[in-house]
Amino acid sequence: MLQLNLEKLQMKAGAIELGEAKISGSTPTRNGVNKGVSILDFILRLLAFVGTLGSAIAMGTTNETLPFFTQSIRFRAEYDDLPTFTFFVVANAIVSAYLILSLPFSIFHIVRSSAQKTRILLVFFDTAMLALLTAGASASAAIVYLAHKGNAKVNWFAICQQFNSFCERTSGSLIGSFSAVALFVLITLLSGLALSRC
Amino acid sequence: MLQLNLEKLQMKAGAIELGEAKISGSTPTRNGVNKGVSILDFILRLLAFVGTLGSAIAMGTTNETLPFFTQSIRFRAEYDDLPTFTFFVVANAIVSAYLILSLPFSIFHIVRSSAQKTRILLVFFDTAMLALLTAGASASAAIVYLAHKGNAKVNWFAICQQFNSFCERTSGSLIGSFSAVALFVLITLLSGLALSRC
Repeated sequence: MLQLNLEKLQMKAGAIELGEAKISGSTPTRNGVNKGVSILDFILRLLAFVGTLGSAIAMGTTNETLPFFTQSIRFRAEYDDLPTFTFFVVANAIVSAYLILSLPFSIFHIVRSSAQKTRILLVFFDTAMLALLTAGASASAAIVYLAHKGNAKVNWFAICQQFNSFCERTSGSLIGSFSAVALFVLITLLSGLALSRC
Repeated sequence: MLQLNLEKLQMKAGAIELGEAKISGSTPTRNGVNKGVSILDFILRLLAFVGTLGSAIAMGTTNETLPFFTQSIRFRAEYDDLPTFTFFVVANAIVSAYLILSLPFSIFHIVRSSAQKTRILLVFFDTAMLALLTAGASASAAIVYLAHKGNAKVNWFAICQQFNSFCERTSGSLIGSFSAVALFVLITLLSGLALSRC
């Protein structure tokens, strides 16, 4: 009688274990997908950091002194002659600093795939940073376009004939920034995916 | 004997019902919160639509003819004298069209609070549209700033002394666009919240 009871108990314990295994059966695959998403998120953040930092440095170190000068004036162009380019440097610096600060969160998401609150926090700040970065990049693009083409209607002359290397440098530094914008859109998409699977 | 079995059956059925009630016990509150979030999402989309459409129309109808003219030239400024403003109008028009198209999805989310795939789709397109809208708004802001202040270093003169009402109109039309940018950041945050509760 006692043995029978013991056997029943063992069977119950087995059933409970089985039940647990069943309940948590779908979680490992979900966590697996989320871990993959988090790792991809980490890589994209690193790439975006490289892009924004590169852009900030490339623009921030841009200046050109023309080989001729008159008695009083030296023909020299620096990035901060145009306030928009200063904004570009500041925006890129802020975003790259944010990206570095967000990396620990990204690692935390790799380790704990089911974290939700930190993900929502990141979605919010990611979107705000995306807006800041896009603002800097496209404002600079508008000015660079003007520098290249000028505008005859309002008498703004193209300055790229004189400051050739200055123009090339500023145009080139937009690339990193716009790539980072595209990466941010992907990062937000990944966050949405991960949140839906938590 | 038969009655006993029937009673047992009824008890079982009762237990099953109780179990179901327990399982789905937390879902109604979650759905309630999600419904609230979806309704807020709908309202924000409507507001953003008004903002972007207003911006597009305000900028698209901007022109000014000065009261004096020479024999050959009439002094006239239109928004499409500056390509950036054309981009602004196009970007705002695209985004407001997108917002109208996204309203049915928003209504669908109010009705079916647990929908996930459509939410992720919207997060992706919302982010892309946020980038487009910010690009248009900030590029125009850069040009408007230049029109107001000019830039002595590169000999671009402020045109707002002559074209005063033109400048005021273009500056004002930025407001709706930048408000819509802020609304888009909120909309993405709400989508993240809703996704985490699905």
